Amino acid sequence: MIPRYARPEMTAIWDPSTRFRIWFEIEAHACDAMAELGVIPKANAEAVWKAKDVEFDVARIDEIEAVTKHDVIAFLTHLAEHVGADEARFVHQGMTSSDVLDTCLNVQMARAADILLADIDKVLAALKRRAYEHKDTVRIGRSHGIHAEPTTMGLTFARFYAEMDRNKRRLAAARAEIATGAISGAVGTFANIDPRVEEHVCKMLGLTPEPISTQVIPRDRHAMFFATLGVIASSIENVAIEIRHMQRTEVLEAEEFFSAGQKGSSAMPHKRNPVLTENLTGLARLVRACVIPALENVALWHERDISHSSVERGIAPDATVTLDFALNRLAGVIDKLVIYPETMLNNMNKFKGLVMSQRVLLALTQAGVSREDSYRLVQRNAMKVWEQGKDFKQELLADPDVTAALSPAEIEEKFDLGYHTKHVDTIFARVFGETA
Amino acid sequence: MIPRYARPEMTAIWDPSTRFRIWFEIEAHACDAMAELGVIPKANAEAVWKAKDVEFDVARIDEIEAVTKHDVIAFLTHLAEHVGADEARFVHQGMTSSDVLDTCLNVQMARAADILLADIDKVLAALKRRAYEHKDTVRIGRSHGIHAEPTTMGLTFARFYAEMDRNKRRLAAARAEIATGAISGAVGTFANIDPRVEEHVCKMLGLTPEPISTQVIPRDRHAMFFATLGVIASSIENVAIEIRHMQRTEVLEAEEFFSAGQKGSSAMPHKRNPVLTENLTGLARLVRACVIPALENVALWHERDISHSSVERGIAPDATVTLDFALNRLAGVIDKLVIYPETMLNNMNKFKGLVMSQRVLLALTQAGVSREDSYRLVQRNAMKVWEQGKDFKQELLADPDVTAALSPAEIEEKFDLGYHTKHVDTIFARVFGETA
Amino acid sequence: MIPRYARPEMTAIWDPSTRFRIWFEIEAHACDAMAELGVIPKANAEAVWKAKDVEFDVARIDEIEAVTKHDVIAFLTHLAEHVGADEARFVHQGMTSSDVLDTCLNVQMARAADILLADIDKVLAALKRRAYEHKDTVRIGRSHGIHAEPTTMGLTFARFYAEMDRNKRRLAAARAEIATGAISGAVGTFANIDPRVEEHVCKMLGLTPEPISTQVIPRDRHAMFFATLGVIASSIENVAIEIRHMQRTEVLEAEEFFSAGQKGSSAMPHKRNPVLTENLTGLARLVRACVIPALENVALWHERDISHSSVERGIAPDATVTLDFALNRLAGVIDKLVIYPETMLNNMNKFKGLVMSQRVLLALTQAGVSREDSYRLVQRNAMKVWEQGKDFKQELLADPDVTAALSPAEIEEKFDLGYHTKHVDTIFARVFGETA
Amino acid sequence: MIPRYARPEMTAIWDPSTRFRIWFEIEAHACDAMAELGVIPKANAEAVWKAKDVEFDVARIDEIEAVTKHDVIAFLTHLAEHVGADEARFVHQGMTSSDVLDTCLNVQMARAADILLADIDKVLAALKRRAYEHKDTVRIGRSHGIHAEPTTMGLTFARFYAEMDRNKRRLAAARAEIATGAISGAVGTFANIDPRVEEHVCKMLGLTPEPISTQVIPRDRHAMFFATLGVIASSIENVAIEIRHMQRTEVLEAEEFFSAGQKGSSAMPHKRNPVLTENLTGLARLVRACVIPALENVALWHERDISHSSVERGIAPDATVTLDFALNRLAGVIDKLVIYPETMLNNMNKFKGLVMSQRVLLALTQAGVSREDSYRLVQRNAMKVWEQGKDFKQELLADPDVTAALSPAEIEEKFDLGYHTKHVDTIFARVFGETA
Repeated sequence: MIPRYARPEMTAIWDPSTRFRIWFEIEAHACDAMAELGVIPKANAEAVWKAKDVEFDVARIDEIEAVTKHDVIAFLTHLAEHVGADEARFVHQGMTSSDVLDTCLNVQMARAADILLADIDKVLAALKRRAYEHKDTVRIGRSHGIHAEPTTMGLTFARFYAEMDRNKRRLAAARAEIATGAISGAVGTFANIDPRVEEHVCKMLGLTPEPISTQVIPRDRHAMFFATLGVIASSIENVAIEIRHMQRTEVLEAEEFFSAGQKGSSAMPHKRNPVLTENLTGLARLVRACVIPALENVALWHERDISHSSVERGIAPDATVTLDFALNRLAGVIDKLVIYPETMLNNMNKFKGLVMSQRVLLALTQAGVSREDSYRLVQRNAMKVWEQGKDFKQELLADPDVTAALSPAEIEEKFDLGYHTKHVDTIFARVFGETA
Repeated sequence: MIPRYARPEMTAIWDPSTRFRIWFEIEAHACDAMAELGVIPKANAEAVWKAKDVEFDVARIDEIEAVTKHDVIAFLTHLAEHVGADEARFVHQGMTSSDVLDTCLNVQMARAADILLADIDKVLAALKRRAYEHKDTVRIGRSHGIHAEPTTMGLTFARFYAEMDRNKRRLAAARAEIATGAISGAVGTFANIDPRVEEHVCKMLGLTPEPISTQVIPRDRHAMFFATLGVIASSIENVAIEIRHMQRTEVLEAEEFFSAGQKGSSAMPHKRNPVLTENLTGLARLVRACVIPALENVALWHERDISHSSVERGIAPDATVTLDFALNRLAGVIDKLVIYPETMLNNMNKFKGLVMSQRVLLALTQAGVSREDSYRLVQRNAMKVWEQGKDFKQELLADPDVTAALSPAEIEEKFDLGYHTKHVDTIFARVFGETA
Repeated sequence: MIPRYARPEMTAIWDPSTRFRIWFEIEAHACDAMAELGVIPKANAEAVWKAKDVEFDVARIDEIEAVTKHDVIAFLTHLAEHVGADEARFVHQGMTSSDVLDTCLNVQMARAADILLADIDKVLAALKRRAYEHKDTVRIGRSHGIHAEPTTMGLTFARFYAEMDRNKRRLAAARAEIATGAISGAVGTFANIDPRVEEHVCKMLGLTPEPISTQVIPRDRHAMFFATLGVIASSIENVAIEIRHMQRTEVLEAEEFFSAGQKGSSAMPHKRNPVLTENLTGLARLVRACVIPALENVALWHERDISHSSVERGIAPDATVTLDFALNRLAGVIDKLVIYPETMLNNMNKFKGLVMSQRVLLALTQAGVSREDSYRLVQRNAMKVWEQGKDFKQELLADPDVTAALSPAEIEEKFDLGYHTKHVDTIFARVFGETA
Repeated sequence: MIPRYARPEMTAIWDPSTRFRIWFEIEAHACDAMAELGVIPKANAEAVWKAKDVEFDVARIDEIEAVTKHDVIAFLTHLAEHVGADEARFVHQGMTSSDVLDTCLNVQMARAADILLADIDKVLAALKRRAYEHKDTVRIGRSHGIHAEPTTMGLTFARFYAEMDRNKRRLAAARAEIATGAISGAVGTFANIDPRVEEHVCKMLGLTPEPISTQVIPRDRHAMFFATLGVIASSIENVAIEIRHMQRTEVLEAEEFFSAGQKGSSAMPHKRNPVLTENLTGLARLVRACVIPALENVALWHERDISHSSVERGIAPDATVTLDFALNRLAGVIDKLVIYPETMLNNMNKFKGLVMSQRVLLALTQAGVSREDSYRLVQRNAMKVWEQGKDFKQELLADPDVTAALSPAEIEEKFDLGYHTKHVDTIFARVFGETA
């Protein structure tokens, strides 16, 4: 977690005070359920709630842990300081530390997922707005970095929308994966605790009881969660790379918004660098780096070993905080992206008319010229445009082999931009689920 | 793809001949749709099907590609050799190579997913059978590799079942992710091809039309697919590690089936090594290694660059073939695993009665002893078992501070194994969704 | 960087105040060199050193950066507040931000490497001491987790020593890789700054001038550095896994030192868990996770893009702080590891005499029995030990086919442990480079 | 290993026949050494060499392995078929399979490294030639994809040269890491084999004896080897990305060589796509994907487990074959890269004179204008060039605040390109170690 790339709302989830608050709730709800089942006295369960509004003293808990070398015991000792040693003596009864730790972690991850889902909604809103705004803004489509055929800026935004919308569904599924809780005791057998305690605690915390846990909640769930974050991060990179390309000096079809006081370079004052999307490219790498450790965490020894713990202390905050920051930055970048439609047209016409070669090729074929001959006819005229800066249409009109197959009017018609945008509405309807 | 870790059914999917067969189907169905729309003559569409039963000549296509340096053009040229140059001249009209390549890849990946889903079913069947077989086979549960409390071998199988069942659902979702097709032309605008062609081809191949494609189908889909395979591989490792631990000489609670002619070691004839599960551990690493490249493939330049292609030529066969082999090997290992219930009991009793310490702790607390005092009482007797080989129950019965709180009968009762297995049926019902 | 897994000495390197201190030194030394070359007035160069003992105000610099959105400009503005606007006006002349940032990063990484090298020395010292202490402590060697032949605990320590010693050499090489500096201007051409300035600054900071930089120092250097940390982390995991295996209940050949107040489990007071080495296993995953992002950072656009920066803000502290902590923890674990030689012998004799089977096999072969027959003879007797708990030596003495080839004395001699340890001194001499 | 990205020389190293050939040599040399030591009869050692020129029958060995499920035993059985059962009976005596397997693997990896080193030499030669050819070919340097200051194409090649030269040294070090052999018996104690056998075999195969092995050669060595390949692959990506950028339609400063018969696109005949460098980008991802599994292979259980084996069956050929192909492809791309110096100048002047802004800024500062004022002066004129297409020099000459500080001649002088290239020779001397 890098402070400069962190937002308070997400950071707060991983604060020790939040963790202790959730631990408290787990223990208190568990006491309630045990009291309800007659396992412990109701008075003791009620007494625990005395600490309901306590701000737990993180430093004090750390101090106790320094002696016990065990975080949950340290917390319980501190809790007893608030509730009273006698009243607190049934707290955690029949439970194991991991019941608290793992259920808490999943509460935190589910909350983090909720923030990330809201973040994605921001990105989606920005993408949709810009998509409709530039639905008909023609620009050249490129494959291999080379001009291909015309498309529109709206379609670019629309495809990022569709991709991010898939990410939303993936994240919702990943959230469901980790929104489970377990209060099943030392090795998951419920030997010392009734399964109904688990059910109650989970219900109160908005979780599903883990069908079968060992000492821990199985880590394939977390692996799937982090893998999903890795995919979302890669989609962010995908958008970022597009914008960085658009902003490069020779292309300049768009620029990140450049505020008044901002300085692009200590040395070259004219520079406006796509630093936000470059940053997003790097942040994507950081989030992705959490995937493999999460996968390595799945295979624990027997009913659990604790190797996963230090990994999760790192990647759980790192991945969620970084991704939250990145999604918000991305929403802002898209929202304020300065777009230059005129440059888009100029770029498209860099090689005059050449991007229409495919249409001409097709027309020749349909006019009865063999595919191979059509290809040769198009290529020989295209090469003059490419190498000598000629105008493709004029060259075609002057090529007797071409005009033998196509009339001037037919050739002229092949250079109509509307031909390329005629299905934009169809695609928008597919993506945004509405008639455009 | 390592031949020794490959099964023919999966390997066949990635054979060039399969690829050309699928390419043919895409082109032929596209011709049908275009003919139906009146874009090309029906006769030409029908002519293409002349190649329906042709075994395409891979070597010949390679030969043409060596000249054209373009695989789809090479195939189309070869197809024309079968169909006739004139009849074939409308094949691929308005399409771009990626329409064929990407739709084909997704057909292959969907087929691979189908095999993997069937593989998981085999693993699930074996796990379920063994789970019920050993539902009540008591063994010690271990955390940190240290004895904790009793559990049963059936629960171990059941948790692997639950995990693999989650993987089945993940894989089904991942299959849906990549079961899309695109016939949308050079940059995805349908400028030269009617969207209805895409719809027809997808329908005939069991795919969903990609809502918005560029030149390619977006790679976040494939990233999600490979990430899911990585999770499944990690679950395989999880089972493999468990079995490897069970087979180690000092534990010996289970062994991989050891066939008659097999030799464990060129040097030590008595050795029976868990080589299959060790192998699975390694194969899991290989499958996992495909995840990051798949994530790196998401961010392509503009409407596409071809960097993803070489990656997919590697990871698509590698990950699916290796995972298919691993799942099958795993199913076999589980199916034939030799289990030693007697050793399980002996291991549990290595430190006589010590694994019951948690119950005694709880009983003391419930009898009114403070948590801290209970802990001390249990620990001082436990240490005598641990360090001097004493019998825990006998020590407790001889400790006046303990007997002051608990009667001999109460102490005796704490050593009942049934206490630990009383919820096994509950858990089985959760996992297998039926009353046990 | 996880506070609980961080040591102050390493953390301090990554503190903003350290960074600003190094920036200051780079700028001040650069001014000196420029003054020496007559490019700027000597008085101005001298004036900069007024800030020599200044504690830079991190909050103030952050405040300025909030406006300028550029960290180096913010620092220079703040520096001018100390030095005087007029006196400071030649600071940074002809330089670009990256000259400062990259040279500073490499100073930090070189310092981090120095700490890590000292850490490795601690690990090496502990390993060497324990190796000699247990040079002749016999334990069973295991392959596949299965008993193989006797070895000694000293050899185990010795092999970890040799591995860690290789890591030391790798780290020294990796340190040299990143101990370069660059003061080469906007795109590395020295257009606005004399190469001698770079030479002077590098010399004063203990760096080598980067032979050819662009705007940045090439990132293949950093990639190699982080890759090396990943290898070291994997070696830590290697030791950790060994100790975790040794401590598992059924093996119990060693235990991590367990201090008085420490509680192993909130539920099971007898438990002594190898939590330190489990933790090291997890920390290794975290360090390893920094490798791929560092590799992805190598390919920057043209003379640089800034995508690497956010990555390095994460992985540079994360990897070095975590590895530093892990190496120190490892040194402590090794130093205090409690070793149980008696259990080692007991474990070795679990299957009476069986681990000598290879020797017997060899003896039979040398006595003229064919390899295949020898193998069969050994295996049939070995199986009786394995399956029925018989004593291998007694079985051999009772097998007429065996005694036809080997005399009782010859058989007896095969069970001498000294046979297996006779080359320990040879190996120690190879590893520790001295006569034992 | 993808056939289309494989060269025969490297592929041959990983052919089963090569492996068996090396196994034979190891066994035969070991017999020689044992005979020399008097451990086995000289006649038997000599007899083994009867198989010196035998082409081992891979199918036959596979057939035997299908029964024994052990590859080395299968080989030894087959070897005996050539040498004679009686003569062969001392082959492999006192050795363990891994002695053969690991020593063989390292021979293969060392040979692979030799090919890769030769590959790098090809790349270096091409880079050096092109560097000198374009030493003075001016192009714009870019940071963030935005024009910065002039540099030369020669410097671009030179920096790739320096980077690849570092890779050569890294690879040489990595080769030394894995060029070790071990013939130390079942758990590495030399109990059944004299260390001098290891010395002899290693000497004959060009290896160094592993100072301390267990059953296997320690895998940190291989981890370092594969990590190094990952770095090299990332450097390849670095060059590839540069070329892909240069070839994009709007930049077009260079193009991959485009042969006569080649077709860029099935749809757009004018297209010349940088498919080779895009391919290299993908291949880099594939090689990098081998790093993490190699790191995961380091921590084996006790004296070894066999999990590393399947991983290495994948990554050893995959990484070396792919990298070999990629380096060769890269050498070819560089060698034949078509460079357009005129376009470079045109691109640089897209915003007339703007790239000189840093020089003007510096001149103003040196003329006594404060840094902040200079920055503002430069920026306000720069913005007119950027936004209105004005000529930077003309704007400066017309700005009274500028001309108050700088004379027209001084302004004029700032636009001299030679200013930026004056240190090219210095840098070349640093990189190529010679006077230019």
